[in-house]
Amino acid sequence: MGLQRTDSRTVPRWDRRTTDLLAHSARVTDRGAQLATAEFADWLAERGRENAFGVRRIDFAELKGWNFHRPTGNLVHQSGRFFTVGGLRVRTSAGSFPEWHQPIIRQPEVGILGILAKEIDGVLHFLMQAKMEPGNPNLLQLSPTVQATRSNYTRVHRGAPVRYVQYFAGPRQGRILADVLQSEHGSWFYRKYNRNMIVETRDEVPPHPDFCWLTLGQLYELLHRDNTVNMDSRTVLSSLPSLAEPPDDRLALTPDAKVLSWLTEHRSTHDSTIEMVPLTGLPGWRRTAREITREDGRFFDVVAVAVEAGNREVPSWSQPLIEPHGEGVSAFLLHEFDGVPHVLAHARMEGGLPLVVEVAPTVQCVPANHPEDMRPRYLDEVLAAPPARVRYSAVHAEEGGRFRNAVSRYLLVEADDALAAEPLPPGYAWLSARQLERLTSAGLSTNVQARTLLACLRSVARSS
Amino acid sequence: MGLQRTDSRTVPRWDRRTTDLLAHSARVTDRGAQLATAEFADWLAERGRENAFGVRRIDFAELKGWNFHRPTGNLVHQSGRFFTVGGLRVRTSAGSFPEWHQPIIRQPEVGILGILAKEIDGVLHFLMQAKMEPGNPNLLQLSPTVQATRSNYTRVHRGAPVRYVQYFAGPRQGRILADVLQSEHGSWFYRKYNRNMIVETRDEVPPHPDFCWLTLGQLYELLHRDNTVNMDSRTVLSSLPSLAEPPDDRLALTPDAKVLSWLTEHRSTHDSTIEMVPLTGLPGWRRTAREITREDGRFFDVVAVAVEAGNREVPSWSQPLIEPHGEGVSAFLLHEFDGVPHVLAHARMEGGLPLVVEVAPTVQCVPANHPEDMRPRYLDEVLAAPPARVRYSAVHAEEGGRFRNAVSRYLLVEADDALAAEPLPPGYAWLSARQLERLTSAGLSTNVQARTLLACLRSVARSS
Repeated sequence: MGLQRTDSRTVPRWDRRTTDLLAHSARVTDRGAQLATAEFADWLAERGRENAFGVRRIDFAELKGWNFHRPTGNLVHQSGRFFTVGGLRVRTSAGSFPEWHQPIIRQPEVGILGILAKEIDGVLHFLMQAKMEPGNPNLLQLSPTVQATRSNYTRVHRGAPVRYVQYFAGPRQGRILADVLQSEHGSWFYRKYNRNMIVETRDEVPPHPDFCWLTLGQLYELLHRDNTVNMDSRTVLSSLPSLAEPPDDRLALTPDAKVLSWLTEHRSTHDSTIEMVPLTGLPGWRRTAREITREDGRFFDVVAVAVEAGNREVPSWSQPLIEPHGEGVSAFLLHEFDGVPHVLAHARMEGGLPLVVEVAPTVQCVPANHPEDMRPRYLDEVLAAPPARVRYSAVHAEEGGRFRNAVSRYLLVEADDALAAEPLPPGYAWLSARQLERLTSAGLSTNVQARTLLACLRSVARSS
Repeated sequence: MGLQRTDSRTVPRWDRRTTDLLAHSARVTDRGAQLATAEFADWLAERGRENAFGVRRIDFAELKGWNFHRPTGNLVHQSGRFFTVGGLRVRTSAGSFPEWHQPIIRQPEVGILGILAKEIDGVLHFLMQAKMEPGNPNLLQLSPTVQATRSNYTRVHRGAPVRYVQYFAGPRQGRILADVLQSEHGSWFYRKYNRNMIVETRDEVPPHPDFCWLTLGQLYELLHRDNTVNMDSRTVLSSLPSLAEPPDDRLALTPDAKVLSWLTEHRSTHDSTIEMVPLTGLPGWRRTAREITREDGRFFDVVAVAVEAGNREVPSWSQPLIEPHGEGVSAFLLHEFDGVPHVLAHARMEGGLPLVVEVAPTVQCVPANHPEDMRPRYLDEVLAAPPARVRYSAVHAEEGGRFRNAVSRYLLVEADDALAAEPLPPGYAWLSARQLERLTSAGLSTNVQARTLLACLRSVARSS
């Protein structure tokens, strides 16, 4: 083009070293630089003993610093920060329900979910934290190195600084392996997304007893255990670069241009009006001293808890949480077409998603919410699959800082040839695993349940 | 992974044929199947003569079907459809202004901007329309095959159906070349995005005198003429797949992971509260019988026009338009590093953008809005460049259906070695042209001015 030339300054756009490091780390499953995988449960239990904490349900009136704002009735923090529980009204031509109202969490800030990585003895390790979250059924789970709202790391609550946050915010030290915006739960958050980061450092990283260096292989082992790897860790892991090799990365049932078109179409052709409304007078919902709940008892409540903990940035606090009714099911049907693994994806509308529709698992529901004659598509196929077809099954909790006992069974289930040959209902498409990875790497395209399942899929693929 | 296998059904994820067809079409510059490039101006002028129309400024009181809603003072259509002019309040830690208020257009629906493509005599042609838009300085410009809001194609205004829309909406005929969501002007639209589509058909397409088949090479020639290819055409063209070959596509100053990180960082680290507010009482703005204007006369007005036209879906109407004060400048500085062309990109915050920050040109402003001591960065470098360094220069109008006389000079200017070696101010980064293309293909990452310049860059690259 006749432009000016300067001394050589360009670099390859994609770095083979990262892929190699990740692939090698994924193969190291039994023992990392800090501990053997068999020792992990004891290490986590020890962290629990060292950090005393307790969580109990309280009345809204016992919340400290939180009030129902007049006249909206929204549940707000007196600082104006953290988050607000307000109302949402959804009117849409997508799905079976043309209009509904629900409480929703509004938190208009972008948090950081960051995992620090470092090569130790030639193997890439990831610094994970034993972190108490009040909504987790077992309280203590494995979180990213940093899991910080802007309120956290700008120290609105005047607590201790967030440990290791300097690797992720401000002038950073280290090499970016992933850094992408990803949505949170579209059913419970209003247009919320976080920054998912993985940063590799060569620095000496000061140790801390609540943190542990683990290989990718160890993390994939732990991902097979119930309620161990928290949601934030799972979504950050899903943002890792792909390790796919040909032919996985070259062939698919559908060209990439058509996959993007499929998502674009579902993002374009619904007619939706989605608005925040006051919590007071929200149709179908009522507030008692202890909860905000639907008159028919379905879906979820808003509740309040008091927390006492030793290893948090502040020693004790109280807060609202969303508590769903019943265990969920999130599942991808899998099938290999011409040797290339595919997942059956669903273009799903959720009222709170930033772009309203994202790629979701084949099945994503709380079965108890659905009467027998309105079972979600593919739920029965997934639950009735013979054990030999279940490639992955574990129970995981959603974000324990906002949701209480929000657990789902995450499943990867092989579809048989007959099911894989069936015509698909509207909104469903077979994507290759690599296409799911690519959409995830782009950000704001795959929902948090699909991202958890992508991390699980990698943990399975590694071992086969 | 042990999944089931079926008969061969997979296809390549990327299609070499598309790239070859596009590259070939880009080389055909002088004559297409329908007309020679030299005949185009006459053809367009003839379409203007065949379709009588006139546009005149009117008082708001003369608008038909539009009213100032009480108590908000928002300018709304009585059907509740089309669009609304309301107020926007922006509070942000990004940029030089911590708070401002402005009128803004709200239109919560996704429109279709679609170009139909077809191989004619072995060359891919694109079906373009001579379309009158009331805000265009010369009224008639070249638009995509289909340029339809949902109100248009669901026929809210009870006009004729949108011609050729069946290739883009509903069960489609043809092959998707591009289909991606792209933002509109973040300074004038509230969270508006459209579906940008290019669809290839093999059908016999019924001709219409207002439509013309042109090669990509012809379109690139026309892109060098002032006020000829409209904004919607430019953004759809920018969404075409890349034609880049090595080494352009393998090397860059910055790896892709870091480019995405740069955008993610700028999307995450500002603290912004952006809310629709009533137009009545909007600080700094006042309403007269003929316009809504800033008390200091800067930036833009909201005005009203009456339109009479022959080739529109309805024969006459009136509507509000936004009319900026003064001609804008949108420019990329270019530089070739190690033979790989790069653009100097700016991560720019605009109050109305769906994700608040997108990749923008090096310079994007209306110079008259800026006092001498607050000249935008790089504006002087761009305007003072010697002619030999100006690789592209033409005046284009923004969306003539919403903006009146909103023209900017679009420039591609080579940065000399000294400028290219300078440290960059915060928010600026050199991206390779291929990286700009890749962000554009992903959607909702590059703003409409950057996308116009990407189409211009391709039109220049083709000819060198």
